[in-house]
Amino acid sequence: MRGVVPPVLTPLTEAGEVDLETLRAHAERLIKAGVDALFVLGSSSEAVFLTRENRRAIITATVEQAAGRVPVIAGVIDATAPRVIEHVADAVECGANGLVATAPYYVRISGTEIANHFRLIHAAAPELPLFAYNIPVSVHTVLDIADVITLAREGVLAGVKDSGGSDSYTRNLCDARDKAGLSDFVVLTGSETTVDMDYLAGVDGVVPGLGNVDPVGYVELARTLAAGDFAEGKKQQARLTELMTITAVGDAPRMGGSAAGVGSFKVALKHLGHFPSLKMFDPHEPFTDEEIEKINAIVDAAQIREP
Amino acid sequence: MRGVVPPVLTPLTEAGEVDLETLRAHAERLIKAGVDALFVLGSSSEAVFLTRENRRAIITATVEQAAGRVPVIAGVIDATAPRVIEHVADAVECGANGLVATAPYYVRISGTEIANHFRLIHAAAPELPLFAYNIPVSVHTVLDIADVITLAREGVLAGVKDSGGSDSYTRNLCDARDKAGLSDFVVLTGSETTVDMDYLAGVDGVVPGLGNVDPVGYVELARTLAAGDFAEGKKQQARLTELMTITAVGDAPRMGGSAAGVGSFKVALKHLGHFPSLKMFDPHEPFTDEEIEKINAIVDAAQIREP
Amino acid sequence: MRGVVPPVLTPLTEAGEVDLETLRAHAERLIKAGVDALFVLGSSSEAVFLTRENRRAIITATVEQAAGRVPVIAGVIDATAPRVIEHVADAVECGANGLVATAPYYVRISGTEIANHFRLIHAAAPELPLFAYNIPVSVHTVLDIADVITLAREGVLAGVKDSGGSDSYTRNLCDARDKAGLSDFVVLTGSETTVDMDYLAGVDGVVPGLGNVDPVGYVELARTLAAGDFAEGKKQQARLTELMTITAVGDAPRMGGSAAGVGSFKVALKHLGHFPSLKMFDPHEPFTDEEIEKINAIVDAAQIREP
Amino acid sequence: MRGVVPPVLTPLTEAGEVDLETLRAHAERLIKAGVDALFVLGSSSEAVFLTRENRRAIITATVEQAAGRVPVIAGVIDATAPRVIEHVADAVECGANGLVATAPYYVRISGTEIANHFRLIHAAAPELPLFAYNIPVSVHTVLDIADVITLAREGVLAGVKDSGGSDSYTRNLCDARDKAGLSDFVVLTGSETTVDMDYLAGVDGVVPGLGNVDPVGYVELARTLAAGDFAEGKKQQARLTELMTITAVGDAPRMGGSAAGVGSFKVALKHLGHFPSLKMFDPHEPFTDEEIEKINAIVDAAQIREP
Repeated sequence: MRGVVPPVLTPLTEAGEVDLETLRAHAERLIKAGVDALFVLGSSSEAVFLTRENRRAIITATVEQAAGRVPVIAGVIDATAPRVIEHVADAVECGANGLVATAPYYVRISGTEIANHFRLIHAAAPELPLFAYNIPVSVHTVLDIADVITLAREGVLAGVKDSGGSDSYTRNLCDARDKAGLSDFVVLTGSETTVDMDYLAGVDGVVPGLGNVDPVGYVELARTLAAGDFAEGKKQQARLTELMTITAVGDAPRMGGSAAGVGSFKVALKHLGHFPSLKMFDPHEPFTDEEIEKINAIVDAAQIREP
Repeated sequence: MRGVVPPVLTPLTEAGEVDLETLRAHAERLIKAGVDALFVLGSSSEAVFLTRENRRAIITATVEQAAGRVPVIAGVIDATAPRVIEHVADAVECGANGLVATAPYYVRISGTEIANHFRLIHAAAPELPLFAYNIPVSVHTVLDIADVITLAREGVLAGVKDSGGSDSYTRNLCDARDKAGLSDFVVLTGSETTVDMDYLAGVDGVVPGLGNVDPVGYVELARTLAAGDFAEGKKQQARLTELMTITAVGDAPRMGGSAAGVGSFKVALKHLGHFPSLKMFDPHEPFTDEEIEKINAIVDAAQIREP
Repeated sequence: MRGVVPPVLTPLTEAGEVDLETLRAHAERLIKAGVDALFVLGSSSEAVFLTRENRRAIITATVEQAAGRVPVIAGVIDATAPRVIEHVADAVECGANGLVATAPYYVRISGTEIANHFRLIHAAAPELPLFAYNIPVSVHTVLDIADVITLAREGVLAGVKDSGGSDSYTRNLCDARDKAGLSDFVVLTGSETTVDMDYLAGVDGVVPGLGNVDPVGYVELARTLAAGDFAEGKKQQARLTELMTITAVGDAPRMGGSAAGVGSFKVALKHLGHFPSLKMFDPHEPFTDEEIEKINAIVDAAQIREP
Repeated sequence: MRGVVPPVLTPLTEAGEVDLETLRAHAERLIKAGVDALFVLGSSSEAVFLTRENRRAIITATVEQAAGRVPVIAGVIDATAPRVIEHVADAVECGANGLVATAPYYVRISGTEIANHFRLIHAAAPELPLFAYNIPVSVHTVLDIADVITLAREGVLAGVKDSGGSDSYTRNLCDARDKAGLSDFVVLTGSETTVDMDYLAGVDGVVPGLGNVDPVGYVELARTLAAGDFAEGKKQQARLTELMTITAVGDAPRMGGSAAGVGSFKVALKHLGHFPSLKMFDPHEPFTDEEIEKINAIVDAAQIREP
């Protein structure tokens, strides 16, 4: 669970159904590009729009496609522990190799309660590594670093996926891990545009939504950075950061952040010939034709190499 | 759907299972007190901790108990439309007489997308009145008043339950309803301590969590206010506001807002002899013995009358 | 310090200078309308745009014009105690009858430090009543009610002007005042559109920016409410709430809230013939001609009576 | 204006007066350590607690002490343009070599108005380079990157001091500067613990509050990073990040962030023998003896080298 772990998009048919065939082909492309693991059912997978049946089908298809070549990590994202634990049971049954859970959301919950939330989830599948997902933009709390370290020491957490957006938070989390001597504890960044900076902070890998579009680019970047070549890494990052501007094309305030962001990845994958449809779940607003052309032009300019 | 519509708590056994027998007795007490409807599966019901099976059982038991004497409104609270619509199907099947849904949460969504979210939900059960739940503390967006009025005109929304906490929002919402000539459109406040003020603002009723503890008090208050006697209403409100201080006893930051708030209602109901247990779903922090004594003393001082 | 205390706008010449002559005439109009006090140098006065010289001139002119007929309360708004205390010295020298201060802003400050901030300010002019201004939209903290009561008991605070926008906060503050037996402690609301609701909550008066435009209307409303006639108060409020829609005409996001709000009051006062200019301090964005016409039409429809 | 530009603390006497003698000695120590410029009257200088007389004295003393060896940049921080412009006049008169201003605060202001705010300030002293200070924790808005670039092109802004805390913001700002070909436009980070990361993002220097305590350490770090040696830079950063934990010793919520942060720098400087007093302006809460001992121990462990 180090290196590049793309949060695998969920392709939909034009009718809005999960398109498992395209999902398998997409997973294959990512594996061929050299990614280190696949993370299904994250925010970029539109996970909170999926029914339990959808979720099970997605894990099963991805595990089959991976066929042991890379681990498949499954998001078990839901508002509270009892419902997360239902997803955990599903994920175990469907063969997932690891789990990712957020802090509770919707509810008004304390730090102590958040820590116990992760303990409950881990107890439901102690055999699988559990990663905490720090994503304040969605859950509206920030994981407390001291609590994370405590949970790591207890064996509850195997790592953190950090989408907090704060450079000093990422730095402090990595430092706390190092101070605690938790060399196996994995910190992954969720930020597509600061992978070089975050490796310097001390992360072990990256979970890039944009890695769905340019997996070769991110694999190369992660290897460059893991080898300590930050000057070269910064150059590679610059190309990917430019590609990331596709997420800023969508018309705010008509489109929300999810529609503009994840939506632009689907547009790019359709343009590249990998996705037959750019459909997202309702009620995400669609792009206009003009916006699609802008995204396509940025994608063309990025000269993405296929695996 | 006017007057007092308590958000019915979900009693649990000591083992943490939903206690349907106590739920039925509790619903009976509320009905006898004269409430105008029962709202199950709201935030106060710990709804986002419940599995689909739990939710179905709770609606079924409440509808059976109500036996047509009062309508039963069911929360269909979930992060996104596809999953809300699963709950809608369950609610319809189990006999609910109305639905309550929030804006999407966890996702980053625009105002246009929020309006379409409600359209999708209504289309799934056009025969049932749909109420929008304005609860920014949980979903981190505020319902746009102009959009609410548009949805009311379209027949998508039958009303709003407003837990926004802003006096000028409540006032503006009621004024917008009146200006639009939507006399059937229902505005309910979720605030226990400002019912008199909110009736003056123009609301049609109240959804008081504290009404689980003192339903007679809230029924009396709503009738007094509906009759236009604000001076007397203010007095009755003062006693209930004092009782509401039970929600401030819980030790922050150890306990979150849900544990301290809903938890205190359960403590009160155990003290009054109505609930056998004060258990909430894990990982809510429990009260200390000392805190329980404080809550009990406040309850005793309030001289709650039974129906 | 009960009843209607309008936050007196600061008229500017077309050249952007403080227009003291118009200020005097404006104060005279307010006094003739029957307001209970004048509050100069508040947020609506564009106080944080004013130099010390400006502030001194405004207090002096208003005190002279009031000539003892009504008290003149002066805002001493600044980021920290040492600078607030400079304004306090100026206000004392210029003859102000009371002071209004906010919590510190810009700095990251604790509740304990906020309470001490007010103690320092009061110590600088113990002979003048000091009002705390709860305005989280500007200072980004909320005054703690328990601390307010402590400061009231110590004689540090004579009252609160509450522009917090939360109905339960206003209610809880009034209840806390009553419980503490602080019958002389004054709570004023800063909300133009919920005066009836806030009187029911227990406030002693209102500080309405819109009272600059329609002082007769607010004086009548406050008297009606003080007499306990909430049904009639609600009707009068409805007319003023409709007039308040002038603050929503300004084009967001081009104009900020101050330009759209205070700016619309200046437009109205020019239209009514009281202000020669609708100028605000730079860099507030001006209205377009079309927006000005919209505001004028709303003003005309409100049938404002002159004193 | 590249490299290390410490925000110079304002030493106070035990009586709470600005201690100009210590300020001069402190400036001398920083210059000897090799800093590239001195930034007086920033947030770390408790600038918003200072009277105009204080501010003038501080600039004058620092300019005299610097004696042309390094430029002296003066904060002109205030809520609105008219008052900022008063500080600009003072700064020009006292010999400052550059200016730092924030967006307006306290007021509700739009992006367009923020941009015009900077235009007004620059017009007041077009001969001095003006730096915009991105500090959302204090002003509660974030500088728009597109607007910053526009202002840079117009010659209004010479650079940005970024204390936004967001890694992707810093990255995007540097990228936007590079794309616009604005090679003279300076981006400085205000973050003490991510200097290595921020140099990789593309910043030109750092404004470290902790640089008051360990100026030699930051000068060395900046030179290492400017030379492109990120591996060595990360090591040096780690020592400084450890030293930065002195800012986390203060007891929250009793102490606010300013008292715990800037206060800890003063404790360290007293311990190191450079400041006779650890006094901050009232009403900042003081440290306990135990906290002071903890801070001293961290300082001792850091093995700070004097210039």
